[in-house]
Amino acid sequence: MDYKILGKKDLTPVALKTMSNEDRIQLCAELRDKILNTVSKNGGHLASNLGVIELTVSLLSVFDYTRDKIVFDVGHQSYAYKILTGRFEQFDTLRQKGGISGFPRISESEYDRFDTGHSSTSISAALGMARARDLRKESQYVVSVIGDGALTGGLAYEAINDAGHSKTRMLIILNDNEMSIDRNVGGLSKYLSKLRYSSGYISAKATTESFLRKLGFFGRGLIRIIIALKDFFRFLIYRKKPSIFEDLGLVYYGPVDGHDVKSMIKAMDAVKDVKAPVLLHVVTKKGKGYRNAELNPSDYHGVGAFDLDAGVEKSNKGSYTKIFGGTICDLANRNSNVIAISAAMTQGTGLENFSMKYPTRFFDCGIAEEHCVTMAGGLAVSGFTPVVAVYSSFLQRAYDEMITDVCFMNSHVVFAIDRAGFVGNDGHTHHGLLDISYLNTMVNMTVLSPRDYKDLRNCLDYAVNKCKGPVAVRYPRGSSPFEMSGPLYEDPADCVLPHLSSGSGTDFAIISVGRISEQADKAVELLKEKGINGININLTLIKPIPLKEITGMISGISHIFTLEEGIQSGGFGEALARGLGEFDFPGHVCNIAVSDPMIRAASSDQQIREAGLDAVSVAMKIGKVLGRL
Amino acid sequence: MDYKILGKKDLTPVALKTMSNEDRIQLCAELRDKILNTVSKNGGHLASNLGVIELTVSLLSVFDYTRDKIVFDVGHQSYAYKILTGRFEQFDTLRQKGGISGFPRISESEYDRFDTGHSSTSISAALGMARARDLRKESQYVVSVIGDGALTGGLAYEAINDAGHSKTRMLIILNDNEMSIDRNVGGLSKYLSKLRYSSGYISAKATTESFLRKLGFFGRGLIRIIIALKDFFRFLIYRKKPSIFEDLGLVYYGPVDGHDVKSMIKAMDAVKDVKAPVLLHVVTKKGKGYRNAELNPSDYHGVGAFDLDAGVEKSNKGSYTKIFGGTICDLANRNSNVIAISAAMTQGTGLENFSMKYPTRFFDCGIAEEHCVTMAGGLAVSGFTPVVAVYSSFLQRAYDEMITDVCFMNSHVVFAIDRAGFVGNDGHTHHGLLDISYLNTMVNMTVLSPRDYKDLRNCLDYAVNKCKGPVAVRYPRGSSPFEMSGPLYEDPADCVLPHLSSGSGTDFAIISVGRISEQADKAVELLKEKGINGININLTLIKPIPLKEITGMISGISHIFTLEEGIQSGGFGEALARGLGEFDFPGHVCNIAVSDPMIRAASSDQQIREAGLDAVSVAMKIGKVLGRL
Repeated sequence: MDYKILGKKDLTPVALKTMSNEDRIQLCAELRDKILNTVSKNGGHLASNLGVIELTVSLLSVFDYTRDKIVFDVGHQSYAYKILTGRFEQFDTLRQKGGISGFPRISESEYDRFDTGHSSTSISAALGMARARDLRKESQYVVSVIGDGALTGGLAYEAINDAGHSKTRMLIILNDNEMSIDRNVGGLSKYLSKLRYSSGYISAKATTESFLRKLGFFGRGLIRIIIALKDFFRFLIYRKKPSIFEDLGLVYYGPVDGHDVKSMIKAMDAVKDVKAPVLLHVVTKKGKGYRNAELNPSDYHGVGAFDLDAGVEKSNKGSYTKIFGGTICDLANRNSNVIAISAAMTQGTGLENFSMKYPTRFFDCGIAEEHCVTMAGGLAVSGFTPVVAVYSSFLQRAYDEMITDVCFMNSHVVFAIDRAGFVGNDGHTHHGLLDISYLNTMVNMTVLSPRDYKDLRNCLDYAVNKCKGPVAVRYPRGSSPFEMSGPLYEDPADCVLPHLSSGSGTDFAIISVGRISEQADKAVELLKEKGINGININLTLIKPIPLKEITGMISGISHIFTLEEGIQSGGFGEALARGLGEFDFPGHVCNIAVSDPMIRAASSDQQIREAGLDAVSVAMKIGKVLGRL
Repeated sequence: MDYKILGKKDLTPVALKTMSNEDRIQLCAELRDKILNTVSKNGGHLASNLGVIELTVSLLSVFDYTRDKIVFDVGHQSYAYKILTGRFEQFDTLRQKGGISGFPRISESEYDRFDTGHSSTSISAALGMARARDLRKESQYVVSVIGDGALTGGLAYEAINDAGHSKTRMLIILNDNEMSIDRNVGGLSKYLSKLRYSSGYISAKATTESFLRKLGFFGRGLIRIIIALKDFFRFLIYRKKPSIFEDLGLVYYGPVDGHDVKSMIKAMDAVKDVKAPVLLHVVTKKGKGYRNAELNPSDYHGVGAFDLDAGVEKSNKGSYTKIFGGTICDLANRNSNVIAISAAMTQGTGLENFSMKYPTRFFDCGIAEEHCVTMAGGLAVSGFTPVVAVYSSFLQRAYDEMITDVCFMNSHVVFAIDRAGFVGNDGHTHHGLLDISYLNTMVNMTVLSPRDYKDLRNCLDYAVNKCKGPVAVRYPRGSSPFEMSGPLYEDPADCVLPHLSSGSGTDFAIISVGRISEQADKAVELLKEKGINGININLTLIKPIPLKEITGMISGISHIFTLEEGIQSGGFGEALARGLGEFDFPGHVCNIAVSDPMIRAASSDQQIREAGLDAVSVAMKIGKVLGRL
């Protein structure tokens, strides 16, 4: 597609504000083309970005992005915004090492107003910006763009409650697409669909227009006048008082068709100067304009590279997520106490089969990690064994609930922590580098970090059937180079013992955790070639550390190296060093871990190298400490 | 007061359910007397407990506490429940070492169904219990009792959203007293007061009764019939559809007078079998029945021992909280960018004066720690310097927001973390023992742990005026034995250097943090008496640790001990040990920290001893490690 508007020098902020409606529609088509082509090459978030193209063009037609502040909730839907705010040329580098981030980043552009990545933060952040504006007696507009999914998060509600009370002038755009990543759940979701359909706006629009077109002889001009009048009256009609937002103190307008640029511009123009927090309800369709994504938006939420004509193909490749999904079904089959809980990530966490096989034992609680954990606490004190499946970095949201509502009562809740370690192209907001450290602060918590698929299966079995208190099983994104092989241990408890993974000799010992243990094996090989002989011990049970067994395995070795895919502070390495100190271990312990948790988007292999956790870096480090390289 | 009912053997669960209304009123009077007398001796939560006496008696009249599950949100209002569920005799030990906890504790009684202490958890926990019941096809009732303050927490909203969607049978009692600890804020609060007054139930009740009384000749019997009829009709009338709860899928009943046992029992009886989540709106008065507390409920939220006739006297004693409150006003006076933010704890965190002096620069966001932090993030990226004042254990709620909405952007937000360390009689849910560890996991975060008042003032000055990124200042509950003395440092940055606090000699060095540093000084003295000579270095800046300065001060000393009032894992001690390791420090580092974070209610001095952090224990430990005791 040849671009008539996009990428041209005269596409200035002012041009966006003064463009004709036809040009805006053309611009939307070009943005759609650009996003489709880039994402199909680089991977990224697709359905959500296709859904907000008209919304973004409307926003930049009404507001001045060089002055006004637009905050995208989660931020995975900010591609059109990035392209239009000076990043058209660089957009081909989307999500690549050194390229444009898939999320708003203050460090990338002054027009990215707030770093996002986790859900439901935009109203709070925008309220802070609006208050700052008021304190300075400035006049710019502040806009939060939030999906109906993100609105199920408690943080968004806390912010609305505060904004509604304080009456600060700001605009909240509710981008209602009936989806978070999976189909939405919750009372609020039902309520929104009532709003959408009771107002009958979509059908009304369709019928009127088709009626006008049928009449034919009215002519284009007259139709335009009538549609304009209709828009005006519709707007008056839309100004209703749907209780839930008005009750919390917001002024509500809508719903407006989120793919009709003209209507949206009119609505935003009308509400932008209301001296109160306004919620403008916009209805969009995820995946809009790309049929495959419209039909299966969940499959097109986050994608790898794919062929635009053929569409995304379901991968047959194994993954930790799939192994978890399969294993938890097996365990549920053998143990009727097993319950699975998801925070709006049924597909992402591999729980689809479980949810179909055991619908009464499955709960999707919405983007509400905190509630997931406390609700699990309620199930656990009632004798069930809930398995809470959440990504590592998102589980940070429930830090307090894990401690007070589970660990203090020593309740048997299993935390299945996906995306532990580097996550690749989503970048630093999504890395699971803190979980070992935050889990280490939790009393009674057992932590398991499997190295491969088989380990994961054993750990889950152990966690569900052998543990009595809270237990976390953390595993990485993606797939293991080791295929699932052989049967499980007869006794899953075997998986918690340290295992000699490779090497022999007493020059050094690496004690390694999780998938990164593979790099330690390779480092042992590399060092052996240099005549430095040591061992790699792989450890799955990292809290409490089986110190006695480890000291047995490292006797006579005075240089110990720990290796983990997590931050230094409070990590496994520090804990092991302290533990060995208490055992009066005479040698020296050196922790190899991640020193910079903000390593940017790249492949996870690249990130591992950048963090110095790859085999070559580990071998170099060991050689240097030993004074032999 | 002689008790006719309370403490008698025949006060069985069945007796509670079959008691006459007169006896119930008598029982409430006795409970009020018991609670007033105990709390005035032991200290504790008063206003909230006086407010729910009739509610608790009503609950135990309708539900069978041996079978049904009642979960009190926060749980500080569970005194009447504890007395009536078998703990009358032990109630004198309330909040004392080895005694009855001031909060529900599973370990204390099988009738405490869930450990609480932090806000807004009860609906989630109850929903988990209700789902467990349904899965087992059992029939017991599950009740959550939650205040209107706790309802401002996002977690409660997440739970309502889930419950409303799933239609699980459970009862949520909204205990609406227009207060959390301080007067409530937020759109919801305004909405609730609209509900209360639009229904006009209180005035209606008052007028009808006074009218009936004036008529006189109607006679008691007839009045009773009329009141009963009135109750019945009122009940029909109250069955309305207030939008906010109904919109989220709950069935709403109310409001009901929370001091009228008969009305409440009738209401609970009517709604308990509704096959959906029901919210029963009950209006109570904090402090009910004790005039001082009714007039100033905030002053009677949590109290120390006091004289019942004279009432609580405002203490003139200094405290860290007061020093913070005064200092932050001084800093705001000099620096117009300073903003203060509280999570419904204006008084508790010492921000009362600030809120009056700088009302436009003060924001109370409700019990919403997460929103406080993200909103602060929005202010900070707009150039202001927000100071978020929250207790250490409650700030755990905002762990994720601190990382993603502040630290990742390296925003200058100051966290004033009160109640760091042991908190005394509130017990383990309120200890601030994790903050060093969780702050240590946060990139870009600076952490300051002042030893005394003067240090605190300097640290706050440094945090506000010298730091560029996120910075936390943590300080303990209560008062320092050291009076505020002398002027501040000319350069507040001086406070971040390690200081030789006491001793001389090279047998050992203690590196100590926070108020507990005083114990280290005493330990140095005690050891000196035994001929063991070492030093205590007090450190205020604990992240990043000034390793270079420390290594300079400990050169020639091979036994280093760290001392901190926090857990081992991820704490200051571990970080120092790793840091010294990287500096190739040849000596031995031993961490003295808290190994059991669940030390129960007692005085904080007792807790410090129990944790082995007192001077005698520290001296013993050092002597043993040195092999000289």
